[in-house]
Amino acid sequence: MNADQHSTDPENGVFFMRVEFLVEDGVDRDKFALEFFEATKRFNPQWSLYDKSQIMRMGILVSKPGHCLVDLLYLWRSGELRVEIPFVASNYEAHRQLVEQFKVPFYFIPADKSDRKEAELLQLASRSTDFLVLARYMQVLSNDFLNSYGKDIINIHHGFLPSFKGPSPYRQALDKGVKIIGATAHFVTGNLDEGPIISQAVVQITHRDSLDGLVRKGKNLEKHALSDAVFSYVDRRIIRFADKTIVF
Amino acid sequence: MNADQHSTDPENGVFFMRVEFLVEDGVDRDKFALEFFEATKRFNPQWSLYDKSQIMRMGILVSKPGHCLVDLLYLWRSGELRVEIPFVASNYEAHRQLVEQFKVPFYFIPADKSDRKEAELLQLASRSTDFLVLARYMQVLSNDFLNSYGKDIINIHHGFLPSFKGPSPYRQALDKGVKIIGATAHFVTGNLDEGPIISQAVVQITHRDSLDGLVRKGKNLEKHALSDAVFSYVDRRIIRFADKTIVF
Amino acid sequence: MNADQHSTDPENGVFFMRVEFLVEDGVDRDKFALEFFEATKRFNPQWSLYDKSQIMRMGILVSKPGHCLVDLLYLWRSGELRVEIPFVASNYEAHRQLVEQFKVPFYFIPADKSDRKEAELLQLASRSTDFLVLARYMQVLSNDFLNSYGKDIINIHHGFLPSFKGPSPYRQALDKGVKIIGATAHFVTGNLDEGPIISQAVVQITHRDSLDGLVRKGKNLEKHALSDAVFSYVDRRIIRFADKTIVF
Amino acid sequence: MNADQHSTDPENGVFFMRVEFLVEDGVDRDKFALEFFEATKRFNPQWSLYDKSQIMRMGILVSKPGHCLVDLLYLWRSGELRVEIPFVASNYEAHRQLVEQFKVPFYFIPADKSDRKEAELLQLASRSTDFLVLARYMQVLSNDFLNSYGKDIINIHHGFLPSFKGPSPYRQALDKGVKIIGATAHFVTGNLDEGPIISQAVVQITHRDSLDGLVRKGKNLEKHALSDAVFSYVDRRIIRFADKTIVF
Repeated sequence: MNADQHSTDPENGVFFMRVEFLVEDGVDRDKFALEFFEATKRFNPQWSLYDKSQIMRMGILVSKPGHCLVDLLYLWRSGELRVEIPFVASNYEAHRQLVEQFKVPFYFIPADKSDRKEAELLQLASRSTDFLVLARYMQVLSNDFLNSYGKDIINIHHGFLPSFKGPSPYRQALDKGVKIIGATAHFVTGNLDEGPIISQAVVQITHRDSLDGLVRKGKNLEKHALSDAVFSYVDRRIIRFADKTIVF
Repeated sequence: MNADQHSTDPENGVFFMRVEFLVEDGVDRDKFALEFFEATKRFNPQWSLYDKSQIMRMGILVSKPGHCLVDLLYLWRSGELRVEIPFVASNYEAHRQLVEQFKVPFYFIPADKSDRKEAELLQLASRSTDFLVLARYMQVLSNDFLNSYGKDIINIHHGFLPSFKGPSPYRQALDKGVKIIGATAHFVTGNLDEGPIISQAVVQITHRDSLDGLVRKGKNLEKHALSDAVFSYVDRRIIRFADKTIVF
Repeated sequence: MNADQHSTDPENGVFFMRVEFLVEDGVDRDKFALEFFEATKRFNPQWSLYDKSQIMRMGILVSKPGHCLVDLLYLWRSGELRVEIPFVASNYEAHRQLVEQFKVPFYFIPADKSDRKEAELLQLASRSTDFLVLARYMQVLSNDFLNSYGKDIINIHHGFLPSFKGPSPYRQALDKGVKIIGATAHFVTGNLDEGPIISQAVVQITHRDSLDGLVRKGKNLEKHALSDAVFSYVDRRIIRFADKTIVF
Repeated sequence: MNADQHSTDPENGVFFMRVEFLVEDGVDRDKFALEFFEATKRFNPQWSLYDKSQIMRMGILVSKPGHCLVDLLYLWRSGELRVEIPFVASNYEAHRQLVEQFKVPFYFIPADKSDRKEAELLQLASRSTDFLVLARYMQVLSNDFLNSYGKDIINIHHGFLPSFKGPSPYRQALDKGVKIIGATAHFVTGNLDEGPIISQAVVQITHRDSLDGLVRKGKNLEKHALSDAVFSYVDRRIIRFADKTIVF
């Protein structure tokens, strides 16, 4: 059993709380929920109750770089990441073999921005997933898609946000001459690379690191930040609030 | 004896080299310089020769936060940082006592932006220093000052550049909800918080860190990044090139 | 108001809780304590109640390296570290000037291991301090001293414990060829460098770093880890339990 | 073209140098080697000349935890890690499917310590590999094996060496109450977990991290440190010297 609280500020702030219950066998879940609701009623809280034994369904979208994809697939297959993966969709056909080796359905969705393609993806995602992970997916999802899907989408950005938004963040970092690079996992919103940050990872670089060197070092950061974020999400340890996240 | 090389790219790039010589007693330095120049002539390099026994003169400008100031003063006093400190100038009179305890001259320069005040500071800096350190100096130096002074100026910015330029970077970081904060030491140019980066330091934060918590953690980063940069500078290990630095 | 809980394990573990209360003016503290005690009685907890407005008294012991000393003194003087400092005691007379500049009493206690010297130190510490900080104090305190003093003592060890106990940890790290060095703040117990760890800080090194380089980089780590530990202690965020610490 | 030098100490130390040459088409390699040898003869150096176009053959040994294995296999398959992988051998039959998906030969070598089994492994490794990687291989290789194989073996240890040698380093770290955990890639020698360190990676933990949490965080460190070490090795950037490594 764990419990965490956080309040944004002591006087007129918002108070957050996350409690894990160990429920004995034979306890009726609906009844438990009802009693919990009664007990907290006088504070009139916003609340959600999750059953940890229910497995979430995670759809994966990915473009050419496959390192985050294979990291997630292996975490899932080894039993560490407790999700279902109903599909991997990619605009890069070459991932098919890898994905099908893991016995996960693969959908090739070419990167023409036709409405039809996005509609297909939307239908697929809506009916079979509880959340999506963009594991280095380089296509921008339309606002229509985001609104219609309506559930959480986690993206890995290969830069230390809010620096280096948009394309080629390692190139931007190299040109700027920073001495530390980073990767950022965040929720997707309608504003590109602007959604609430979940986790970040960083590593030192020097003038000796070429663009290839940054990319190589960065891939470790991306795997690290993305898997951290996905674990936190699946464990229900993330609360989104006011463009930010509380990660218990 | 140490030697370092770096080339920006193998084909048409620029080649950098730094060599430390141990010179035996009795060697004439001017003669040595001449011979070195002859030996390298056929490559027609740009070069500089420094005598490590010559101590550089470092002027310090500081506003209210004094943690970087006292860090530098103690590094100097303990003999680790081999510089002269001809003065500390501040728009914050309360530092006088601390600075004079270290037997360093203190100048109070109020923060009215009159030309006369900056002219005083310029005269002071020009005649008595080889470089300046802005150890959390919150006044912007005019382009006239930068041009007339003409030597290197190292600034510590309390944010992870290029993110969070300008005032209140910790407030900006808190509002953005980042999970890692940083500090950046860089050379000053006419563009605020845009000059070549010398060193950066970072630390993890969580939603539990208040603004005060960020400021507290950040002070360690600022001391760390600034003293790293000053040591590298005094050791002549920094080469400025094309808006970036090579730090050997 | 903040609240933190932690339980060592869900079934037969120990449950820890720390709650900060904002008490309105006019509330009688003793009455509050009594009511709190009544409310928690049925769990029969071990508990302590601290009044945050009461300032703790921190004695400092230090040998030759003064960087942690000056860091603490400045944190105190700038008002960030809310303690009283009844004295600094050292076996290194040369710190007197620095300490007295900060208007803190200085005691020179030579490093002969006579019982008389330790008795003096014990008397001084016992009557005027709530806890002691060994800010790079290279003398080993006897078990008699520890038992008679009976309050908490925080030490900074300039190595990444449990590696590199005892003298010359940077030399040990260099000889071992590690690629990352660290510093460790911990409570002092009768076993040298074995007490509960409070905080650790690390930095990357390379084969280029000489012993002097390690010492220089390490000093930043030591200041960082020790001030973190002291802030946590003064904020009453540390719970010692079973040779380990919980730092809320 | 790159060049790096390092000398252990300026007076009677050893001087190391690594130079990458870009050789024009049509240059005879043997002639080039001869000329290079002539040019350096008067210093009587120990030297090796490698042809970067020659791909090294890397054998992998692995026990149950497969995260480093899959990381290496994917780095190889994506073309980033330029090696041949003649085989993966494991005492854990369940890896067969994964390995064969990558079209790499898999050998099941049960963990009975019979001489016959080790002899098989030795024969396999000797005839088909230039170096071995122990990607979480929990069997100890005998001194006979090490001597007969005679080439480099890189191991990943899931602890921050020299702390926490031997089995269950995360359990050891948890029991000790450290605040930072690490992983270490090193060359294998006859002394368990004592060989020259190549790379280390670390991450902060808190009292909230259970053993499972440490293991989860640690896996990222292990992948990170091991792939760094393997890249450095394959790029011929590592020089072993006196129980330590120089990594250019």
